[in-house]
Amino acid sequence: MATKTVSETFTTRTELVLPNDTNTLGNLMGGRLMHWMDIITAICAQKASNRIVVTASVDFVEFKSAIKLGEIVVLEGKVTRAFTSSMEVRVDVWAENLQTGDKRKSNSAYFTFVAVDQNGNPIPVNQITPETDEDKELYNSAQSRRELRLLLAGRMKAEDSDSWKKLLS
Amino acid sequence: MATKTVSETFTTRTELVLPNDTNTLGNLMGGRLMHWMDIITAICAQKASNRIVVTASVDFVEFKSAIKLGEIVVLEGKVTRAFTSSMEVRVDVWAENLQTGDKRKSNSAYFTFVAVDQNGNPIPVNQITPETDEDKELYNSAQSRRELRLLLAGRMKAEDSDSWKKLLS
Amino acid sequence: MATKTVSETFTTRTELVLPNDTNTLGNLMGGRLMHWMDIITAICAQKASNRIVVTASVDFVEFKSAIKLGEIVVLEGKVTRAFTSSMEVRVDVWAENLQTGDKRKSNSAYFTFVAVDQNGNPIPVNQITPETDEDKELYNSAQSRRELRLLLAGRMKAEDSDSWKKLLS
Amino acid sequence: MATKTVSETFTTRTELVLPNDTNTLGNLMGGRLMHWMDIITAICAQKASNRIVVTASVDFVEFKSAIKLGEIVVLEGKVTRAFTSSMEVRVDVWAENLQTGDKRKSNSAYFTFVAVDQNGNPIPVNQITPETDEDKELYNSAQSRRELRLLLAGRMKAEDSDSWKKLLS
Amino acid sequence: MATKTVSETFTTRTELVLPNDTNTLGNLMGGRLMHWMDIITAICAQKASNRIVVTASVDFVEFKSAIKLGEIVVLEGKVTRAFTSSMEVRVDVWAENLQTGDKRKSNSAYFTFVAVDQNGNPIPVNQITPETDEDKELYNSAQSRRELRLLLAGRMKAEDSDSWKKLLS
Amino acid sequence: MATKTVSETFTTRTELVLPNDTNTLGNLMGGRLMHWMDIITAICAQKASNRIVVTASVDFVEFKSAIKLGEIVVLEGKVTRAFTSSMEVRVDVWAENLQTGDKRKSNSAYFTFVAVDQNGNPIPVNQITPETDEDKELYNSAQSRRELRLLLAGRMKAEDSDSWKKLLS
Repeated sequence: MATKTVSETFTTRTELVLPNDTNTLGNLMGGRLMHWMDIITAICAQKASNRIVVTASVDFVEFKSAIKLGEIVVLEGKVTRAFTSSMEVRVDVWAENLQTGDKRKSNSAYFTFVAVDQNGNPIPVNQITPETDEDKELYNSAQSRRELRLLLAGRMKAEDSDSWKKLLS
Repeated sequence: MATKTVSETFTTRTELVLPNDTNTLGNLMGGRLMHWMDIITAICAQKASNRIVVTASVDFVEFKSAIKLGEIVVLEGKVTRAFTSSMEVRVDVWAENLQTGDKRKSNSAYFTFVAVDQNGNPIPVNQITPETDEDKELYNSAQSRRELRLLLAGRMKAEDSDSWKKLLS
Repeated sequence: MATKTVSETFTTRTELVLPNDTNTLGNLMGGRLMHWMDIITAICAQKASNRIVVTASVDFVEFKSAIKLGEIVVLEGKVTRAFTSSMEVRVDVWAENLQTGDKRKSNSAYFTFVAVDQNGNPIPVNQITPETDEDKELYNSAQSRRELRLLLAGRMKAEDSDSWKKLLS
Repeated sequence: MATKTVSETFTTRTELVLPNDTNTLGNLMGGRLMHWMDIITAICAQKASNRIVVTASVDFVEFKSAIKLGEIVVLEGKVTRAFTSSMEVRVDVWAENLQTGDKRKSNSAYFTFVAVDQNGNPIPVNQITPETDEDKELYNSAQSRRELRLLLAGRMKAEDSDSWKKLLS
Repeated sequence: MATKTVSETFTTRTELVLPNDTNTLGNLMGGRLMHWMDIITAICAQKASNRIVVTASVDFVEFKSAIKLGEIVVLEGKVTRAFTSSMEVRVDVWAENLQTGDKRKSNSAYFTFVAVDQNGNPIPVNQITPETDEDKELYNSAQSRRELRLLLAGRMKAEDSDSWKKLLS
Repeated sequence: MATKTVSETFTTRTELVLPNDTNTLGNLMGGRLMHWMDIITAICAQKASNRIVVTASVDFVEFKSAIKLGEIVVLEGKVTRAFTSSMEVRVDVWAENLQTGDKRKSNSAYFTFVAVDQNGNPIPVNQITPETDEDKELYNSAQSRRELRLLLAGRMKAEDSDSWKKLLS
């Protein structure tokens, strides 16, 4: 089992908002953006594992500002941590108006992927080594985000989660 | 301001999984499914508010079982509760193999939409009246899901949330 | 060979009219609507037969009212009757403006599908049992619609069709 | 009001069958083909009228042979006759396998379009002059096809239709 | 090895410019047009070779006039000459406004395709016989265009190219 | 008129090759790749000019290696030089197989864009300053590529081009 650095999984994609991506007000629809976020994070997880991956879950996503027709969307993803056969991937999204030069953060999200073999069964993945301070912080906090997922999925109780006891105390 | 029943917002959609919806294993990609979930829930929120709506957030979504090329996906959405200008919409997703007759629950999720005017500013929405026991239960639990969203978005502290103090105690 | 009820084949789909679905006036193009009608009716025929199906024919379709960009389209399909290896499926289409609440019938059509095996050869299908009065009426009238198809396809003469002799006398 | 010849409205289009156009057996879906037929015939009607047009109806369409992934589809359309503000357009469809050289007729259909002004109201159209024997035959038979449409749409009785009385006698 | 005439490879396609094909000014994007040009020329090369083909190169393409949303684009392609396993295909593009009747040449381009076997390896192709004067001229000038390609690809020196020595002297 | 550095125009995009992007052999079609190359280079030109841009021309493009279904494509673009109202943009394309880790250069190309105002008329653009040695070399060689374009477009004679006289001597 090899080890990969976070930076080896980094992936970026610039999209142009076209008419069919927008609602009646000319705003990018949230579902289209989630579709793009899923593709970019799936590529990150494939880079980390050299395996086919399937989306296991998406954490709470908030859409903070409207993105308009003709603007561009920049998505940047990276794997923050690998567990046995799953990987947490963070994606940051910016919107940019190339006529005005206005660039603003749209949102961030965490996707979880599972690496699978040709029959679709989970298989172990390469471990991920954080190098920068930011990546180390994301690596360390991945454990409590994971416990929140188990909590929300009904597979862990709050009292069994050290992270949550600390967070909520 | 009118009042609508949950059942007036109910919307359903049957999709066929086509090649471009799938990954290399022939499984429906998570992002495509989220795109479909966003469209169906946006329609529910429009039925409730008779307004243009924008996606404000998506709660934690888990993808439990692979959906294959050629299978159908049934999505059922309904508004569970309206707040000032936002609405919580629940969507349930089933996958079905029409050759074998196998039908299975894929997942559920909660989307939040905000009704906006032609300038994109939030405007008040119709209130929602639950009628069935299930709808009443979803209406009542909407408040604690809302507090979790505020908590996760960093706009509320855990100690200010009655629902969370109860849940986590 | 099993028997299915009409209601077991019932399928519904709500579509949102997006920019690429429309012509220069912002009206839904007829061909896009027929594409949606074909998908929904194919799913009905697959539910009835548990087989892969291919479109055999489409009866006369009339487009009565313009459907605009941003409106929703509700399609409801059901198998009305099965013959040896073919099935007649009826689809009803409504358009709805969610801002004004205006809902209107767009049109109806009958599609015919043939169930095929992996080599594309026709195979016998499950019979369909109508239960409601409406479904019984559609079941009974399916025979004359079938004779019209044979007539129009040049495979039957008008004088050999009891239904047509009656209708046209 | 100008006059156009049938040949001035002639339009052709060669399509390549791509994965998303096909069902699980790799056959072109009927609805996709109808979508293509609608676009080509709409272009014919626009050439004839120099107006925006909307699909009014589609006559009975039969799909005679499966068209496979990777094959090409050739569509040829022309306006056969103009009435007050409507036009009948015939489209012929061939499938061709470029590896084997096999070329076969797939089907034909008649689409009817109405020319509209910017408010979507019907407006008079240019008349169409047939020149070849084939075009004259199609021009002449257009009247009885039109009466069949009115009959099927419930807007004419069989006994009021000379064409039908003759055809069915 | 058979021989084909240029006219046997002729292929045409009429496209309608839809919203998603256009930029913020409502003009057809150059990349979408190149996509259409590639499909039509690939079909020409398949007609000539009865083989699967892959795009090897595209010569300099100039976009002379804006094509607007709602206009139609007519593409006409034909193989001008075959070499060992490659074929040069010329495509001419016109834009047409069906409301005003304005029709104008948009551009021309030369695509080169290689015929391949099921493993993707190049295989010999049918030779092409020009019949008209125009086709003979294109056949003869194909050699110097080929030398320019080799020159631009860095696989030939200018002094080894008779055509270029002549052209540039 | 402001000045921008080459690096301010740098844009990257990672694409996943999906079924509809491929031909019968499962290879990415050249036209789809050109479509992606056009979008990324248009974004570079918009970043440089803060204007709407239209594709003016594409230089000779060679496709060196097949890119397969499920592989990823990385596109990197940057403006190399601005002229009065046009900009030359270089795009480099890599293909990568995330299962094997194999990464290979696919090709490069130069696109030219013109900045336009709301009426589609050309307007002056910001000048571009190269900073790295590579960018300086591309800036300097842009002049001879521009002369080749004028030569190929028939708007300059070879004997009037210093670059070409030198290159071909």
